[in-house]
Amino acid sequence: MNISRAISTVSLFKDADEDLIQRLSARAHSNTYKKGKVLFIHGDKAELFYIINHGWVKLFRETLDGKQAVINILSTGEIFGENFIFGNGLYPYSAEIVESGTIISLPLSELKEEIENNKSLAIKLLQSMTTHRQKQELELEHRSTQNTAQRIGCFLLRLAPKNTNKCPIINLPYDKMLLASRLGMQPETFSRALSKLRQNTDIRIDGSSIQIDDLNKLSQYICSSCSGKFPCQD
Amino acid sequence: MNISRAISTVSLFKDADEDLIQRLSARAHSNTYKKGKVLFIHGDKAELFYIINHGWVKLFRETLDGKQAVINILSTGEIFGENFIFGNGLYPYSAEIVESGTIISLPLSELKEEIENNKSLAIKLLQSMTTHRQKQELELEHRSTQNTAQRIGCFLLRLAPKNTNKCPIINLPYDKMLLASRLGMQPETFSRALSKLRQNTDIRIDGSSIQIDDLNKLSQYICSSCSGKFPCQD
Repeated sequence: MNISRAISTVSLFKDADEDLIQRLSARAHSNTYKKGKVLFIHGDKAELFYIINHGWVKLFRETLDGKQAVINILSTGEIFGENFIFGNGLYPYSAEIVESGTIISLPLSELKEEIENNKSLAIKLLQSMTTHRQKQELELEHRSTQNTAQRIGCFLLRLAPKNTNKCPIINLPYDKMLLASRLGMQPETFSRALSKLRQNTDIRIDGSSIQIDDLNKLSQYICSSCSGKFPCQD
Repeated sequence: MNISRAISTVSLFKDADEDLIQRLSARAHSNTYKKGKVLFIHGDKAELFYIINHGWVKLFRETLDGKQAVINILSTGEIFGENFIFGNGLYPYSAEIVESGTIISLPLSELKEEIENNKSLAIKLLQSMTTHRQKQELELEHRSTQNTAQRIGCFLLRLAPKNTNKCPIINLPYDKMLLASRLGMQPETFSRALSKLRQNTDIRIDGSSIQIDDLNKLSQYICSSCSGKFPCQD
């Protein structure tokens, strides 16, 4: 696995010059982890940020009374922790490997130095944080405007290939329990909501494989409760 | 009203040098608006960002089926739209005056130029976006881990004065209907949740004034379902 190639595929470093990629690569470490490995814990001193070369990572927090809130589930080519350089020096959540894979870790101090000396990298980070903010705002909107069936449907629609006339088959990227917690639902709520979605949109569910017979019907059912237009612009 | 003073109180421009404040002030306009005035509409071309000198502003979006999602309600000293310079050129939500006041508008093009030429301003914006991101993540967490009564209580706790042994009286900053939509609840859900909160925490409600007799009891009831500690760190 080529570390510099993996770094340069991350959107934040896409247009970066070769020198920057080489400097980052020289400080990077690549590790292969099994499912269940915890990379860091909420409240620990934040020293590294991460790029996923392969596998799935769950970002989460735990409440005093033992509930778990999943902040995000990320995969290949995605970066996390890069904005911690502007936080309070502590990890604001925990990170756990949920599908075995290879993770590249880099020192936050290195990124901080690069950003302070490289205006275009700072602008690039501002752009990616703006995109992320708008996604979060949309997710918060959906918690108010969409019912649970629509929220599952919205997740599926985003996985469906764009501009197709065929009936796409979607494979859920991870198990249903994890998907339920990513969507902020109890497992039993998720099951009921998935049945409701099936009844309302004629999707066919076979284990973790979902066939969409009528993309129009599905998008109409979901996107009427969204302020955006289908297909999603982000 | 002194425009440059209002600009320099915004946290983004707090440590800015006097020249920057003067350049921004020279391009700024101050307007007094009545309740109900719409400043801009979701999807319009984004040309201005705003600082609230006085009054309240609701940021919101509307879905095709007519539901409204309130993204935030902001007041004196707060800024909005400053990150649009890194978006797609369109306003990602609508903004409406909900309590009459004075609003300062500034061209996004001016801010963009300043940020491109001023590293410390870019870093300051990255810091403020990181803080905002962490608040949004906490809000998303609460949608999963807190019940509706806890979410109202959390809003009240943040308004309560810190480090006091007395029983604080909190005046709701805006009417209950608006607060319900800010918290993503239907008005009837909000009423039931407020009663439940009263029963569980001995708060006393008199119109828009709320007395907290036992801050400990209130915080224990709410913060057990949060990954943070009381008092809130952000």
